Amino acid sequence: MRSHFCGLIDESLIGQTVTLCGWADVARNMGGLVFIDLRDHEGIVQIVAEPSDVAGNAEVLAVAAQIGYEDALCVTGIVRKRESVNNKIRTGQVEVVATKIEVVNKAEPLPFHHHENPGEDVRLKYRYLDLRAPEMQRKMRTRTKLVATLRRYLDERGFQDIETPILTKATPEGARDFLVPARMHPGEFYALPQSPQLFKQILMMAGFDRYYQIARCFRDEALRADRQLEFTQLDMEFAWVDEKIVQDTVEEMIREVFKEVIDVELVNPFPRMTYAEAMRRYGSDKPDLRIALELVDVAELVKGSEFKVFTDAANDADGRVVALRIPGGASLSRKQIDEYAAHAAKYGAKGLAYVKLDEAGAINSPIAKFFAEDAFQALLAAIGLKNGDIAFFGAGAYNKVSDFMGALRLKAGKDFGLIAAGWAPLWVTDFPMFEWDEEEQRYVALHHPFTAPAVDSIDDLRANAKAAVSRGYDMVLNGNEIGGGSIRIHSSKMQSAVFELLGIDAEEAQAKFGFLLDALKYGAPPHGGIAFGIDRIAALMAGSESIRDVIAFPKTTGAQCLMTGAPSEVPDKQLAEVHVRVRKE
Amino acid sequence: MRSHFCGLIDESLIGQTVTLCGWADVARNMGGLVFIDLRDHEGIVQIVAEPSDVAGNAEVLAVAAQIGYEDALCVTGIVRKRESVNNKIRTGQVEVVATKIEVVNKAEPLPFHHHENPGEDVRLKYRYLDLRAPEMQRKMRTRTKLVATLRRYLDERGFQDIETPILTKATPEGARDFLVPARMHPGEFYALPQSPQLFKQILMMAGFDRYYQIARCFRDEALRADRQLEFTQLDMEFAWVDEKIVQDTVEEMIREVFKEVIDVELVNPFPRMTYAEAMRRYGSDKPDLRIALELVDVAELVKGSEFKVFTDAANDADGRVVALRIPGGASLSRKQIDEYAAHAAKYGAKGLAYVKLDEAGAINSPIAKFFAEDAFQALLAAIGLKNGDIAFFGAGAYNKVSDFMGALRLKAGKDFGLIAAGWAPLWVTDFPMFEWDEEEQRYVALHHPFTAPAVDSIDDLRANAKAAVSRGYDMVLNGNEIGGGSIRIHSSKMQSAVFELLGIDAEEAQAKFGFLLDALKYGAPPHGGIAFGIDRIAALMAGSESIRDVIAFPKTTGAQCLMTGAPSEVPDKQLAEVHVRVRKE
Repeated sequence: MRSHFCGLIDESLIGQTVTLCGWADVARNMGGLVFIDLRDHEGIVQIVAEPSDVAGNAEVLAVAAQIGYEDALCVTGIVRKRESVNNKIRTGQVEVVATKIEVVNKAEPLPFHHHENPGEDVRLKYRYLDLRAPEMQRKMRTRTKLVATLRRYLDERGFQDIETPILTKATPEGARDFLVPARMHPGEFYALPQSPQLFKQILMMAGFDRYYQIARCFRDEALRADRQLEFTQLDMEFAWVDEKIVQDTVEEMIREVFKEVIDVELVNPFPRMTYAEAMRRYGSDKPDLRIALELVDVAELVKGSEFKVFTDAANDADGRVVALRIPGGASLSRKQIDEYAAHAAKYGAKGLAYVKLDEAGAINSPIAKFFAEDAFQALLAAIGLKNGDIAFFGAGAYNKVSDFMGALRLKAGKDFGLIAAGWAPLWVTDFPMFEWDEEEQRYVALHHPFTAPAVDSIDDLRANAKAAVSRGYDMVLNGNEIGGGSIRIHSSKMQSAVFELLGIDAEEAQAKFGFLLDALKYGAPPHGGIAFGIDRIAALMAGSESIRDVIAFPKTTGAQCLMTGAPSEVPDKQLAEVHVRVRKE
Repeated sequence: MRSHFCGLIDESLIGQTVTLCGWADVARNMGGLVFIDLRDHEGIVQIVAEPSDVAGNAEVLAVAAQIGYEDALCVTGIVRKRESVNNKIRTGQVEVVATKIEVVNKAEPLPFHHHENPGEDVRLKYRYLDLRAPEMQRKMRTRTKLVATLRRYLDERGFQDIETPILTKATPEGARDFLVPARMHPGEFYALPQSPQLFKQILMMAGFDRYYQIARCFRDEALRADRQLEFTQLDMEFAWVDEKIVQDTVEEMIREVFKEVIDVELVNPFPRMTYAEAMRRYGSDKPDLRIALELVDVAELVKGSEFKVFTDAANDADGRVVALRIPGGASLSRKQIDEYAAHAAKYGAKGLAYVKLDEAGAINSPIAKFFAEDAFQALLAAIGLKNGDIAFFGAGAYNKVSDFMGALRLKAGKDFGLIAAGWAPLWVTDFPMFEWDEEEQRYVALHHPFTAPAVDSIDDLRANAKAAVSRGYDMVLNGNEIGGGSIRIHSSKMQSAVFELLGIDAEEAQAKFGFLLDALKYGAPPHGGIAFGIDRIAALMAGSESIRDVIAFPKTTGAQCLMTGAPSEVPDKQLAEVHVRVRKE
């Protein structure tokens, strides 16, 4: 239908006749002429309909005068040099003088135009109009390019793209499963996979050597700010490997892909940090290294104080007392400090002690009175507090204090413009094997129950489960966990022992994971892998805050598709066919 | 862990030390030596553990003597020229003399070895053992290569890979939906997509220009012999096109991909045939052109007979009388002819008339008596019956006769070895827009309700719906419909008219497809596309009868995964969370 794309018309075409197809971005009448910005996925070019003595122009002008926003047009015309150059667009040196304009599909009055922002709900309802915006097209193209580049990289290196089932077995470990009633098996259900974890491990046991899949995964969780019910991961698994091979391979891949897709050179090699170090220095297992702030442990310096909150934590083996210095933070008002306290409270803080040193060096701190003068000065010196700074303190259980102080660090980084430009990747390693779940009074797996422990002996693991370190690793970028993986257990006996430590008895293990325990018995090779969050990486590359910008048809935090109206009621007849009925509480 | 792959060891490595990882395919003791066939995904190499005076060999031999089927091993050794060359394997010129054998994971006694075929149920239960077979590895690699090649082809040509939702809206058109209860919306359900049809059309309206996706699709249908609940299609859509652009583009793609993946040159261009011609000549809308047999219409020649079955059909405007000549078919016994009649009956035949001409030219036919001698001879001449042939006759309603005679043609082709070697692709075009559904007493769409009619005028379509031809097209290969597509309706008014003709009233249309009808109003471009069945194409390329051979974890015809045990019962607590209960009839 067309000879060229709108956005690619340039001076090399001057004098030529072209046919273009696209949408009327803007149409305006000026001095008897009509100017139309014609837009396709490549960009915009200016069309002119002008009155002249040449036969036929009157007709073109009459059509052009009726053009409205988003009419679908096919335009034939002659490319010429533009009088008033527009340097904002690629085609700004030229314009097309129309000899024929066909209105292929006249648009009715629009609910909104993508030049406006009518709010996300309206944008999602009319997603097809929203996606026409050049900025949205750019973001979606970034995602496409990311995925294509990853695939090419892996295809060239012998990784085999293998699809695993979407209709699979319910495995109540981890997040909540989506269930699908099985019509042919009354009372039974398939589940949608939370990840292809077990299938990819089975593939290694099935003799495949290097696997990948851009896999859709499903988690029926409360939708926090930027989560989706379904999401996409680059899922990878390697046979006959240790963690070094996996990490080196995928680090190189990520570096190449950033270079190719957005022309960014990531540091080589990525910094590495243990989980313990990350928690200690940054209060996070996914530290944003673009923020130079670090936590300072001060337990030893507060033991002599009379502030019970501090002394209790300082004298508890599982406690922590820590300070976060914010340069220039003395400017915070009482109200702003309260906001920091409220933010910390969301992560479990019960209060938030602080010390301000104003520009003149005067101390303002509700806790100074609990310290001897010289002890307090020693504390401030240890923190490195300077005139104009503030320091916040956290005291209590180690993990909780780390969490809320880590959260304050991020907030301070943002509020005070302390986030350096650029990209800060790193590896976090040596995660604890287990976490103690207070509510359920049992261990839970920090990665997942298939992660190998660093020790080979089952007895050693049992004897020291609390301190056991796993062979898991995360790739972190700018404070986001973009990839997580591990070397897996490849011994059936070790897998059973880990299930047992997680409170899954032999019968339950057999019912849920029997096929895995079986498969491990028949010569399972050592194996490991990783999974990357494609939505998040694409959003980072596209410079988007929200992953919804790089998903064509996302759902709302209310788990709805505003365009199609999913989910929806279905006739009872359809439910009867799959042997369920709606439950009314 | 390894220096080389087992299957790639060759004479260039003679004298070198290599480390290999893999599985013991076979181990045998011979004359004080132990030979192990070590297998990885690349193939097999022979390992030798030999006694000699060199220190340490005794230890290697002791380990080797204990090796069993499918033990996971890492072997270090020196490559040397093999005494008894084995030309059946790529590495057959060499062997590796082991200096170290590590049993990484000892296999327990196996339920079966892939050298045996214990039946598909056992193979599927222990799929990880089944997939280790070199033949299964080869088939799965063919699929991987097919998909990678398609993607690269499309990426290079500016097609954008865009993911569409798996959790979407129930649309009761077509096959039965899988339903997913929505936890956050009590009493409501998501549905799994039968295809991304509407999403890809919406993408064109959203300003994307060329789309593709290797998409998982779901149909809750009775599993006929070679169907799966979930299947994979290459889904494509083009904006601003007519059928020629779509067909030329994808025909070229398929030709290139066959060349690259399995080194087959498909004819250029593909033959083209209308639906009417395909039904007339082959009794099928997906004719297998490798079989030279054609149906011969004989209504005019039987009108004068006294065989009422023939004369009724011959005098009915919607009737058909047709013959199928099978060269050499006179050898069929009475019992075999009954089998043909039974086969035809499956497709709706009520009986099966025939005429045999034996090698001596004697006629054997139950219907000869209804004909005058010369009329019968004229009939046989028209059919081209020769000594040694048989001809079957079909008479009745046009479509039914075509169906069962088409089925007989395929059976005869197979039984008599009349399927030519090679590949026979073609396009089938000009499908009817609608089919009359006797049961529901309404029109149904032959492709789907979004397919554009060949006429532009709504009035013309309404006036002549029965004879209306659509802009749909199928790509057929060796009797399989491997791709189906169409130019779509891009006018909201035409779409509403088609819904109406299909018996979907305005209210229902708005409830189910309101977002499509809306989107068509805001400048929808002309668009069209196609979808290819990846599982089937991969099976054809791999030389497999069953698509299950090119799916890593297929379900049985009973809709079960024998490995994981899906589907399964789930605790009532989990059902309560998603607001459903099991319905007991």
